[in-house]
Amino acid sequence: MNTLLLNKIYDVKLNITNWKKDNLIIGLVPTMGALHKGHASLIKKAKEMCDKVVVSVFVNPIQFGPNEDYNKYPRTIDADKNICAELGVDIVFAPTPNEMYGEGNKLSNTELTFVCPPYNLTDCLCGKSRPGHFDGVATVVTKLFNITSPNYAFFGQKDAQQLYIIKKMVKDLNMNLTIIPCPIVRENDGLALSSRNSYLSAEERTWALTISKSLKEIEKLYKQGITDCSILFDTAMSILDKNLEIEYIEFRDFNTFEEVKSAKNNTLTAIAVKAGKTRLIDNIILV
Amino acid sequence: MNTLLLNKIYDVKLNITNWKKDNLIIGLVPTMGALHKGHASLIKKAKEMCDKVVVSVFVNPIQFGPNEDYNKYPRTIDADKNICAELGVDIVFAPTPNEMYGEGNKLSNTELTFVCPPYNLTDCLCGKSRPGHFDGVATVVTKLFNITSPNYAFFGQKDAQQLYIIKKMVKDLNMNLTIIPCPIVRENDGLALSSRNSYLSAEERTWALTISKSLKEIEKLYKQGITDCSILFDTAMSILDKNLEIEYIEFRDFNTFEEVKSAKNNTLTAIAVKAGKTRLIDNIILV
Repeated sequence: MNTLLLNKIYDVKLNITNWKKDNLIIGLVPTMGALHKGHASLIKKAKEMCDKVVVSVFVNPIQFGPNEDYNKYPRTIDADKNICAELGVDIVFAPTPNEMYGEGNKLSNTELTFVCPPYNLTDCLCGKSRPGHFDGVATVVTKLFNITSPNYAFFGQKDAQQLYIIKKMVKDLNMNLTIIPCPIVRENDGLALSSRNSYLSAEERTWALTISKSLKEIEKLYKQGITDCSILFDTAMSILDKNLEIEYIEFRDFNTFEEVKSAKNNTLTAIAVKAGKTRLIDNIILV
Repeated sequence: MNTLLLNKIYDVKLNITNWKKDNLIIGLVPTMGALHKGHASLIKKAKEMCDKVVVSVFVNPIQFGPNEDYNKYPRTIDADKNICAELGVDIVFAPTPNEMYGEGNKLSNTELTFVCPPYNLTDCLCGKSRPGHFDGVATVVTKLFNITSPNYAFFGQKDAQQLYIIKKMVKDLNMNLTIIPCPIVRENDGLALSSRNSYLSAEERTWALTISKSLKEIEKLYKQGITDCSILFDTAMSILDKNLEIEYIEFRDFNTFEEVKSAKNNTLTAIAVKAGKTRLIDNIILV
C-alpha cells in the first residue's frame, strides 16, 4: 500500500473527489506532526472506521502567540511519514504556510477570514493565557475539513477544550462530518503523550509526573464520593510538584462547559502547568 | 415539477445527499425573501447552470444591528414560494431562527461560533455603519453552504461588499464551491431593485432615483476619460437629491478592495444613503 505525501491543496482535493465518486468513507486526523503513540491511536481508530485516511501535518502559525514556540516546535516530517506509512495512511498532507495562507504572511484578522468560537468557550482554561489561539485552531480545522471533506475527524481528548470547541463549531456551522473523540494515551509512568514532552529535561519530567498523579487522586476521591471541587482542587495542589508553575486547575461540565463547584459524572478536570519553559496540559473526565 | 418548501435542516440535507449520489450539480440562491426581479435573475442563472436549485429564504437575525429593521423586514413566504415554483426551483428552504440557531436566542459571539471576514473588508462602506453585519452574513452563508453543499452559489452585485467578502471567505477557508456574481437589476427608471424599496413613500422614491442617476453620470464621465475620484465624487454630490442623507460615496478597486483616488477599469463606485428612514445602496463597476 502506497502512502502519498502531498503538499498541495489541489492535489488533495483531486484525490478526495475521486474517493467521493466511489462513495468511500474518509477519515481525517489533523496533527501538527512530531507524531507519537497518541497520534497513532487516532490513526488506528480512523483506519477502523474509514475506507481512506488522511493525516494532515501542519504547524499552524495562526494558532501560536507571538511569545510561543512556533519556531521551535518539533518538525519531523520524514519520521511522521514513516509512521503513517506503517499505519496504512492513504495521504499525508503536509502543506507549507504559504500554501495554506497565501504568499506574503497575511495572517492576521485584518487580512484573513477567521472562524471564531464563542467567547464563553475561549475565555477560560487554555484560552485565557493564549488569546486568539482557538480562533487559529478553528480556522485551520475548518480549512482542513473543506480540503479533505471527511466523514469523520479524529481528535484527542488531551486537548479537551479544543475538542469541545471543534464539536461546537461543527454543530453551529452545520458542518457535514462527525467528530470522534479519542482517549488520552499515556506513558507507563502516567505522563500524557505530547509532542512538547521532547522539550523536557530529565528533572522537569519528574515534576511533570505529578500532573497525572494528581488527576488520578482526584478520580479516586470522586469514586469515593468526594465531589466538593475545592477539596479536589486542594488535593491536586498538594500533589503537584512545587517546581511546577500552575496555570489553572479547573472543573467544568463537559456537556455544557460551565464551571462546576460540585463534581458529577462527565465533569472535566483540567490542569495546565509550566515545567521550566514547557507548557503542559492534562485532564480527566470523571465518571 | 414540484417545488418543495422545507423548514428543517435535516430534510434539506437528506435531499442534497440523494442528489449528490446522482452527481447532480446543485445551485444555491441565498435570500432574505420578499423576492423581486433581482432575485428572479439569480434563480434563472442558477437554473441555467445547475441540475437542482435551492433558494433559501431566511431573515437572518445575526446580521441586523439592534436599531435596524429586523422586525419590520418584509416577510412574504407564500408569494416567494409561488415565484420559486414558477421559476422551477427544486427546494425553498425557509427555516425559523430557532432551527438555524437553536432554542433560546443564543445569538451573540459569547455563545455562537462566528465566521469573521477580515477587518480591512468590513471596516469600510456598509460595514462602518453596520458593525458585526458582515460577521452575521458570513456565518449564515457558511451555514447555508454546509446545509446545501452547492457547486455554485449566486449573489447579486448590488451588495458588492458582501459579494467581495463571500468570495474572499470561500478562498480563505477553501470552501468547495464557486461564487457566481450576477448583475444588478433595475426598474425602468433606474432604481436598483431591493426588498427595502417597499418602505419608500412616493416622494422618497423620487429622491432615490438620483442615486442611479449619479452613478450613470460617473460612468459617462469615466468613459470620457475623467478618472479623478474627487471630481467623480463631486459629480455624484451635485446630482443626489438634497433630501437624501448620504452615508458614503466610495471608490474601490474591485480586485483588491483598496480605496482608489484615480478610477480605472474594475473600480467599484458605491453609494449608500438614507431616504427618510430607509437605507438604500447602489453601485457600479467601471469598465
